[in-house]
Amino acid sequence: MKLHGYFRSSAAYRVRIALNLKGLSVEHLSHHLRKGEQCAPAYLAINPQGLVPALEGNAGEVLTQSLAIIEWLDETHPEPPLLPKDPLQRAKVRAFAQAIACDIHPVQNLKVLTRLRELGLPNEQVTAWAAWANREGLSACETLIAGERGPFCYGDKASLADLCLVPQLANARRFGVDVNAFPRLLKAEAAATAMKAFADAAPDKQPDAE
Amino acid sequence: MKLHGYFRSSAAYRVRIALNLKGLSVEHLSHHLRKGEQCAPAYLAINPQGLVPALEGNAGEVLTQSLAIIEWLDETHPEPPLLPKDPLQRAKVRAFAQAIACDIHPVQNLKVLTRLRELGLPNEQVTAWAAWANREGLSACETLIAGERGPFCYGDKASLADLCLVPQLANARRFGVDVNAFPRLLKAEAAATAMKAFADAAPDKQPDAE
Repeated sequence: MKLHGYFRSSAAYRVRIALNLKGLSVEHLSHHLRKGEQCAPAYLAINPQGLVPALEGNAGEVLTQSLAIIEWLDETHPEPPLLPKDPLQRAKVRAFAQAIACDIHPVQNLKVLTRLRELGLPNEQVTAWAAWANREGLSACETLIAGERGPFCYGDKASLADLCLVPQLANARRFGVDVNAFPRLLKAEAAATAMKAFADAAPDKQPDAE
Repeated sequence: MKLHGYFRSSAAYRVRIALNLKGLSVEHLSHHLRKGEQCAPAYLAINPQGLVPALEGNAGEVLTQSLAIIEWLDETHPEPPLLPKDPLQRAKVRAFAQAIACDIHPVQNLKVLTRLRELGLPNEQVTAWAAWANREGLSACETLIAGERGPFCYGDKASLADLCLVPQLANARRFGVDVNAFPRLLKAEAAATAMKAFADAAPDKQPDAE
């Protein structure tokens, strides 16, 4: 399989963690987002959204959207599971993941920040926007798992929730958010990043890191 | 069960369709988003994100995030299924749904548009922003299903993809997007809205409609 990604894309980072947890090795194809390579016609033919990640399967099939890719990996390579078995617990893990993947990440991604600059906002306001999206969203995430036993977001195993949390916390720091306000999230992050699957997926470990 | 929603929330609209398709009736509790009722402490205790929808189950459990709620409904009330059985097809349906629920909807929701106004953007630029997010995202969605047989987004049955598409097209029109540019999406919308489950979930059919 081939993973179309970029070292700093937090959505691609989620999929890298999932692949590592499943013990799957893939060919990594980098598309330099800041240079706009994700909008090249050849890539748009793979993913019309012009976003990474996209996963090309062995039969040439293309999967897009990080959470859909991860659920597919979980359905086709069930061990270790990335979602609990109980429907209510699955819903909680998915909701936490979506609180990040829907309500934080797209509001502070490169496309939106570029648009804000085009509208004339100065750089410090654009960074403040990204910090706001991260702070607001992570604050809600902190409350969502405040009563959950750890050390991971949900219980004693890494799940889809942790796959979304770790890359988002990296983004939050990059935008200057004081993540010490989120002790329960940091506890989950510490448990996750102690695992080789998470550590190896970090942006600075990727061949295209700058 | 109780559904916390708002007539115009397209995320709540998705869940209303799912409930109707499953033949489930719930108590509807409206939170007036433009009056900020979703940020009242009593509601934040239910959903710390301060967003609708939230579904309260019979045992007092709370589910948040529309896609997580819909997948839970599909797992606990399997008929009619809202996702195909084949993993690759499931991934495609989920990716289409997420292209809307992650990459269009949160970029043009009330919270983001309010923030843009706070940053000093005039109303016409704010509406142009919302139109841009819808136009770009729906254009990619049109391409995603261009080769899919219809009449629905994926095949001859309504799926999670259609549950996300119909409310988003309503938003796009509200922001002045020329949706005639998306004939394949309109074909799916026509098939869906001919169903009572979709028609009954429309914003103007809700008791809190204005």
